[in-house]
Amino acid sequence: MNGFIAVHCGAGYHSENLRKEYQKTCNQACRKASEILKQGGNAVDAVEKAIIELENSPLSNAGYGSNLTWDGTVECDASLMNGQTLHFGACGAVSNVWNPITLAKNLCIKQCDSLSLGRVPPCILTGQGARSWAQRMGLEIVDDHKMISARAFRNFKHCKRKLKKYSIQNDVKFSPLDTVGAICVDINGVVAAGASSGGVSLKHEGRVGQAASFGSGVWALMSRDGIKSSVASCTSGCGEHLIRTQLAKNTAESLFESPSPTESLDKCLKKNFLHSPFLWDVPERLCGALALRHDPQTGDGEVLWGHTTKTMCVGYMSSETDRPKCIISHLPPNVEPGHKAVVSGHPFKIAIQESPVIQWEVAESNCNGYLS
Amino acid sequence: MNGFIAVHCGAGYHSENLRKEYQKTCNQACRKASEILKQGGNAVDAVEKAIIELENSPLSNAGYGSNLTWDGTVECDASLMNGQTLHFGACGAVSNVWNPITLAKNLCIKQCDSLSLGRVPPCILTGQGARSWAQRMGLEIVDDHKMISARAFRNFKHCKRKLKKYSIQNDVKFSPLDTVGAICVDINGVVAAGASSGGVSLKHEGRVGQAASFGSGVWALMSRDGIKSSVASCTSGCGEHLIRTQLAKNTAESLFESPSPTESLDKCLKKNFLHSPFLWDVPERLCGALALRHDPQTGDGEVLWGHTTKTMCVGYMSSETDRPKCIISHLPPNVEPGHKAVVSGHPFKIAIQESPVIQWEVAESNCNGYLS
Repeated sequence: MNGFIAVHCGAGYHSENLRKEYQKTCNQACRKASEILKQGGNAVDAVEKAIIELENSPLSNAGYGSNLTWDGTVECDASLMNGQTLHFGACGAVSNVWNPITLAKNLCIKQCDSLSLGRVPPCILTGQGARSWAQRMGLEIVDDHKMISARAFRNFKHCKRKLKKYSIQNDVKFSPLDTVGAICVDINGVVAAGASSGGVSLKHEGRVGQAASFGSGVWALMSRDGIKSSVASCTSGCGEHLIRTQLAKNTAESLFESPSPTESLDKCLKKNFLHSPFLWDVPERLCGALALRHDPQTGDGEVLWGHTTKTMCVGYMSSETDRPKCIISHLPPNVEPGHKAVVSGHPFKIAIQESPVIQWEVAESNCNGYLS
Repeated sequence: MNGFIAVHCGAGYHSENLRKEYQKTCNQACRKASEILKQGGNAVDAVEKAIIELENSPLSNAGYGSNLTWDGTVECDASLMNGQTLHFGACGAVSNVWNPITLAKNLCIKQCDSLSLGRVPPCILTGQGARSWAQRMGLEIVDDHKMISARAFRNFKHCKRKLKKYSIQNDVKFSPLDTVGAICVDINGVVAAGASSGGVSLKHEGRVGQAASFGSGVWALMSRDGIKSSVASCTSGCGEHLIRTQLAKNTAESLFESPSPTESLDKCLKKNFLHSPFLWDVPERLCGALALRHDPQTGDGEVLWGHTTKTMCVGYMSSETDRPKCIISHLPPNVEPGHKAVVSGHPFKIAIQESPVIQWEVAESNCNGYLS
């Protein structure tokens, strides 16, 4: 069985002494997803497993170890999109859920259900309501303090101190890294994309970023009538700017038919982000995008990444190979972050099985109270 | 001073005995906005004032009198987009805020601020965090029970009873009406759009619908390089389906350059909603859209509305005229809702003043704690 997974653990600035650790985290995330794919598992499950690995790492700003809010709590955003069903599930500003991506996946899959009396399952849940849904679905719920890593707490204290001595010249970066993500194509040609983020440091309680917003944090669309390629993408950067520019959707769609996908991604980042009319008032335009396209007829695919931040840490692997490739991509040294993009890519090949109709089901769940 | 306002109080089914009341509510909303426009007020303020009037009506599913959640509380979504700055502000699943649209406007305008240390003001706030922001901004906060109308409470009890006797054949509609909205062009040619919704009856706590999602509930874009017309739109219907189809953005953008805007809206509702690949699993596709386009060079404009629901209640007026026009638009009697759209429109003229740069400012606010 075969499939292809790509992950990133944020576009921003990866400090040199931690780069090996970041690469190791991406490596493990790829391996976990690859195991699923080798067993014939689907893209949605593979993306979830990769992101669980990234969330569980104290290095990433997602799940455990996320940036703290102004009030010193952890509130996470996550989303997952299934390129076959086109369903999207997201949770925003949710506390106490150990793996927010699993909650997002649950909401995505639940979109297939029909509720009594024509009601529609929610696709975006936030705050306490998101937590209570997760609890009813049997997901792991932990105490507030268990989501806080020592590193995140030190950073929080540091930021609060800095704020007291605030001066406009002081441009210490609060969240050097933001959002993790994964994209995948499985043996049936199904594509999926997921993202998870703790959001910006000292964010306001209840703030929702791109990782819980449709079209902004993730996008996945399978090849269908008139569209030759399947595409998937996930983004990283300042949530508000990624929402305004709907960067995930724009990135993925730019790859549809172009002869040169790296050129398309480069053009897209320029047009839809660096020169976007929606960011006219943003002096420094920081983003990263990870994307893939795959032609189910030929099996040919490309994985691509681009960023306007100093660095971006990316990993990818085909489940037919032994080991992932994990790299730290850099802006050229003389380029100011937020003004130019660097784009790279790598080809892959996944021959597709005869595509069966996949039954998307959530395992055992106890939601009778609401779904009645 | 001149300007044009259009409002709707939901696409769905307006029961015959209440139609006069619905029309009266739209009438009052138009008049309130028109007063603002006559005094040279801007489109953002006019949209807010119109929607406040709609929220305060116990008939509408927005603000006071909203549908209750599964737990018997009121949780509101609202958003506002400024077509000049392209800023967007939204609150989701927020309780106790008497006028959610004012909170959305506040968040939209605050996008112009810059915070210390490169932080970015939130554009989407949810739940308790949204309420605490509103409180700090001096907006009216009320007790839970004050948001609940007698009618909404009766409906809640009725729905819960129905659910106990649930059978799949029983297709009682829970929320015959969803979301109110307003769109406007002011004397400077600025366009704005707003929406406010109590969401579906018996929704899960924390659920966020289209009225708090970028691109789905509202869209506004002023004429700029290469684009002749300014456009604005707002939508109504099932939140999850409007999110997936990003109907507000698609509706507004369909109007850009077409010689026949009614034809464009009709095509757009067919392509992007009735035949959307994103709604492949939705048997009944219910939506309504209110939109306008305006050419700042000639002053010519059109207001348009279209819906696939049985009825839609729409009102509009130029601030140069004495009274609004308020109508209940119907699907033809032999047409099944959710399968075909009916589209209408009306021309208007607003000659634009030399366009000054507008200073978007929030009046006196006390947010030092967060903004420091």
